[in-house]
Amino acid sequence: MSLSHLIPPFLGILGLVAAFRIYKLVMQYETGNEKVTRIAEAIHEGAMVFMRREYKMLGAFSAVLVILLLFMLGVKTAFAFVVGAGASALAGYIGMFSATQANVRTTTAAHEKGASEALSIAFFGGSIMGLSVAALGLLGLGTLYLFFGGDPETAHAIHGFGMGASTVALFSRVGGGIFTKSADVGADLVGKIEAGIPEDDPRNPGVIADNVGDNVGDVAGMGSDIFESYCGAMIATIAIASTMTVDVLDPLGQQADLMFLPLALASLGLICSVMGILLVRKYSAKSPEVALRIGTISATIIFIITSLILIKLIGVSAAVWGAVLSGAVGGIIIGLVTEYYTAGKPVIQIAKSGETGPATVMIAGLAIGMQSVVIPILTICAIIFASSSLVGLYGVGIAAVGMLATVGITMAIDAYGPVADNAGGIAEMGGLGAETREITDSLDELGNTTAAIGKGFAIGAAALAALAIITAYVETVAANIPDFALSLNNPHVLIGLFIGGILPFLIASITMTAVGDAAFDMIKEIRRQFREIPGLMEGTAEPDSARCVDIATTAALKKMILPGVIAVSAPMVVGFVLDAEALGGMLGGALLACVLLALMMANAGGAWDNAKKHIEKGNFGGKGSDVHKAAVVGDTVGDPFKDTSGPSMNILINVMAIVSLVIAPLLS
Amino acid sequence: MSLSHLIPPFLGILGLVAAFRIYKLVMQYETGNEKVTRIAEAIHEGAMVFMRREYKMLGAFSAVLVILLLFMLGVKTAFAFVVGAGASALAGYIGMFSATQANVRTTTAAHEKGASEALSIAFFGGSIMGLSVAALGLLGLGTLYLFFGGDPETAHAIHGFGMGASTVALFSRVGGGIFTKSADVGADLVGKIEAGIPEDDPRNPGVIADNVGDNVGDVAGMGSDIFESYCGAMIATIAIASTMTVDVLDPLGQQADLMFLPLALASLGLICSVMGILLVRKYSAKSPEVALRIGTISATIIFIITSLILIKLIGVSAAVWGAVLSGAVGGIIIGLVTEYYTAGKPVIQIAKSGETGPATVMIAGLAIGMQSVVIPILTICAIIFASSSLVGLYGVGIAAVGMLATVGITMAIDAYGPVADNAGGIAEMGGLGAETREITDSLDELGNTTAAIGKGFAIGAAALAALAIITAYVETVAANIPDFALSLNNPHVLIGLFIGGILPFLIASITMTAVGDAAFDMIKEIRRQFREIPGLMEGTAEPDSARCVDIATTAALKKMILPGVIAVSAPMVVGFVLDAEALGGMLGGALLACVLLALMMANAGGAWDNAKKHIEKGNFGGKGSDVHKAAVVGDTVGDPFKDTSGPSMNILINVMAIVSLVIAPLLS
Repeated sequence: MSLSHLIPPFLGILGLVAAFRIYKLVMQYETGNEKVTRIAEAIHEGAMVFMRREYKMLGAFSAVLVILLLFMLGVKTAFAFVVGAGASALAGYIGMFSATQANVRTTTAAHEKGASEALSIAFFGGSIMGLSVAALGLLGLGTLYLFFGGDPETAHAIHGFGMGASTVALFSRVGGGIFTKSADVGADLVGKIEAGIPEDDPRNPGVIADNVGDNVGDVAGMGSDIFESYCGAMIATIAIASTMTVDVLDPLGQQADLMFLPLALASLGLICSVMGILLVRKYSAKSPEVALRIGTISATIIFIITSLILIKLIGVSAAVWGAVLSGAVGGIIIGLVTEYYTAGKPVIQIAKSGETGPATVMIAGLAIGMQSVVIPILTICAIIFASSSLVGLYGVGIAAVGMLATVGITMAIDAYGPVADNAGGIAEMGGLGAETREITDSLDELGNTTAAIGKGFAIGAAALAALAIITAYVETVAANIPDFALSLNNPHVLIGLFIGGILPFLIASITMTAVGDAAFDMIKEIRRQFREIPGLMEGTAEPDSARCVDIATTAALKKMILPGVIAVSAPMVVGFVLDAEALGGMLGGALLACVLLALMMANAGGAWDNAKKHIEKGNFGGKGSDVHKAAVVGDTVGDPFKDTSGPSMNILINVMAIVSLVIAPLLS
Repeated sequence: MSLSHLIPPFLGILGLVAAFRIYKLVMQYETGNEKVTRIAEAIHEGAMVFMRREYKMLGAFSAVLVILLLFMLGVKTAFAFVVGAGASALAGYIGMFSATQANVRTTTAAHEKGASEALSIAFFGGSIMGLSVAALGLLGLGTLYLFFGGDPETAHAIHGFGMGASTVALFSRVGGGIFTKSADVGADLVGKIEAGIPEDDPRNPGVIADNVGDNVGDVAGMGSDIFESYCGAMIATIAIASTMTVDVLDPLGQQADLMFLPLALASLGLICSVMGILLVRKYSAKSPEVALRIGTISATIIFIITSLILIKLIGVSAAVWGAVLSGAVGGIIIGLVTEYYTAGKPVIQIAKSGETGPATVMIAGLAIGMQSVVIPILTICAIIFASSSLVGLYGVGIAAVGMLATVGITMAIDAYGPVADNAGGIAEMGGLGAETREITDSLDELGNTTAAIGKGFAIGAAALAALAIITAYVETVAANIPDFALSLNNPHVLIGLFIGGILPFLIASITMTAVGDAAFDMIKEIRRQFREIPGLMEGTAEPDSARCVDIATTAALKKMILPGVIAVSAPMVVGFVLDAEALGGMLGGALLACVLLALMMANAGGAWDNAKKHIEKGNFGGKGSDVHKAAVVGDTVGDPFKDTSGPSMNILINVMAIVSLVIAPLLS
């Protein structure tokens, strides 16, 4: 064991310390008056209740998997699974705990101090999450690598870490997605449309649940999502490097160095992320947009430059750096394309199509969503082409690591969005006046853009990570089965390809329906409260918000089981009942269909959302016009698209890929 | 050359004679009073004008391809291309010519003689099309086989036939799809919603175009679609058989026999189809539904039984029969699943979701469309598994042939739908009263069900045919390039897979947008006529229907170019710029994405359509209620889904596959 191998876990600990310091910093700010503090506590409490109930269920499901792994692959893999699941759950918990502390402090800062300080707090709130994700990934994976990585006999156990992380991520993403959208749709439909009260009105029993949902879905869900891509990319690259033969290795470097490189790059990325976070703080007095952009772009540029030095220091071929570069640049391109489709000209087109009613809004949005897959996927193709031409399949893994290395700052900026969104909700509910609301609105608007970019980035990263894991799967199986080839004209591979293509459509269908059903329960409850609680509409009585949180929680937890079980069991069923070829084909088909659906759903949903907002700013007749009503239909369909079913796709493919990699040694 | 090889072209001629005899029979019926005759002539003339203008454009496009083929692959391939394109165009022309003669005769029979005779005429109208497709396929392909099939040097030229047929099919399907939906949406929006006049009201300037569209899209478009799957399946199977090595051949039979078998099976299928058609005629006095069901099922059963005898006669292994069986049965299963999703419980669910507005109608329909891909694709997997386990990759081709052999009757029943639909439109426009309309409505309703089944069948058949062509492509390339393998962990194959996945989404997006744009032109024109022609609303002046037909024609022809060029050029670009591996991957990715989108769009569209009809029958508040309005939104989105973009997918994959097969010898 080289001493340098101590660096990743050590940096992981440092990252956690940094996150804790930022947390302390956030906590120094005022929570504000009694009313907003009480609202914020209700949101915080609701989020924590959801997390606890979700983790209890996850614990039971994980226990089953741990026992399975124990019998099939031994204690080391089972142990790694527990560590991975724990780290992922902890990252989500820390992120959400701090986000629900930062939200109210952002509101109060906006009310008392102004935009710059409000931005700082919201961004710090998100940074805690970003740093925790990166730090826990490095600490957990780095420590396992320290103990298991050196020996090929035990190295496979590390994959259990990825499976644990992915399993938690899947449930967090699906459960969170169902929670957030059922609460959102329910609160909006009864509150805004039936009762005619504004969004985030405190009389609406569903608004607390809606605000809890933003945290549950966009903070914890997104965090677990990126966490598993981040760890998955590293695990896969280590696995690919471990199976490399001498003739492939020779031009690149020592096997041990190539195996360690992903962890080293991620360590460097964490340092760059911290620098980026400091830069945002430094520039926060300028426009928020400029500050966030300076932060991300600087972090990426510093990472790209210093990674070349790192690669030279480790003594690996400089060609590997080309793969890092392709991944880092590709991630930015995919993010920018997402921004174009969800905030550029297509949004105006959709808004305009509202002039001929909701049907044309739907057609325009779906067409734009379908069109939006083209450039991001061609970018992924370019990354594959560049990285594999330079350093073979190992390059694909390194490209994924390169894209994800600066996850600390990417996530910070992404998680900033829901914090700002929540701050606005609290300002409205707390009655802090138009001026405060204006500041939070401007922060929120920026948050929507960064969230869209973050979603595009998350899809690209998940796709590349999954591809790396699939490659690792193929190499692992090939080590056991001579002549193993995933040839498309092998009927078993074809059958697998088709089965793989079905699964994303099935999961998307199940989750979309789940949102509808859960929203229906929510609608009934909110209607009941308006009907049965005397004085609620007049503002003299309190709504029973906890009951709405409970309904969303129960529905989300109930409805996440089926998709979760399908995702985890599909690779096992196909792998053991058919064979390793069919499973490989399935991963290929699922990867393709997941990426296509994820991009289409996220971008169509984002574009519908912003088309509605564009009209609400007074265009095409403005709020209340028929065009606006048509756009609201698009937005309502877009909600489960972009926040439930679409994001589930990222994890679906990663869960299936990592489960396949874990069971690979058992296949024959 | 064996004398038996004369049978397919000979049967092709007999089939054409039979079609001509049925045509004469149809023409003996009365066209009816002067008014309906005039309306029918306008529809007929409109359809013919569209065809002539479309074929002129197609001629120019084909000329470019012929010159390319001439230089790249020689005169034989170019010649085969011309024959294929001509046969496909002729099949579409004959089918549409007779359908637009049968429609008015069906109306008059319904008015004067009753349901049974009306059914006979409508079904005969469709049969002409069904028989022409099968007969021209056998005649064209059988004749080429006679001259080129014996010598491996020239056998490749036959693929040009498939490319010609597919090119025509692509333009017919896309152009017809855009025409029919722009006319439909335009006429409905202005007529039904803005002017408040009933569907098919003669005052509406768009109704003639709408009725022309049914023929252009559902008769000619569907005919070319199935024609190319039918020929593609045979061509691919011949090609697979021609590349078989001795050890694969040995347990199955002589190479010459295996090459000839697809043509022999199709010949048998034609005979069985004619028997089925006669059975429908015999039972037409019973309920129409029973008659049609007896016809198709009997034809399939007779085909399954007699094909075993044929296989034994030819002296090929009986295992091959298993592949025929899997294809024939699989086709029926896929059709029945389609029927369930577009006429069963899911339709009621969608209708019910209208109670909470158009957004939930959209979500429910999309979720059901996504769910509906599962069983049909698992059926395709089962067919691949069964047929390839029995006789290897050759089995996949034979399964496709088995599914498509009885295309004569399948198509007859499918083309019956638009004839009955037109008959209803003519009855309404001609003012033939409620009683007549009731008969045509009942025929039309049945037609909607058969059309849905036909669509599902067409997708399954296209998928299997494409798969066979892709297999043939791989085998052809492998004959030139040693060690050629489409391994999914080859980066080029992966890049191809992703590019292949993009294309269906891009084409679907383009065609959906095209319908919207074309419908917008149509809306403007219809509004102009209502505004500027005095006395139009009062019924004292005639609308300028020809102008609307012209607008739909111009728009359709203009908008079909881009998707057509993309589809034909994509394989060449990927094949020549990247390599044969990338092209193979592209075909795999495109196949998967095409089948998924085709099923989702067809079934969601069909279900929305029938949900609206279910409400119109008085359920959930009936016509004019808010639930109905919500369902109309679903139906409007479903129109381009099920009749434009969805069906384009079948051809897209087949065009790309056959172009790849044609250029395969040039790839290195």
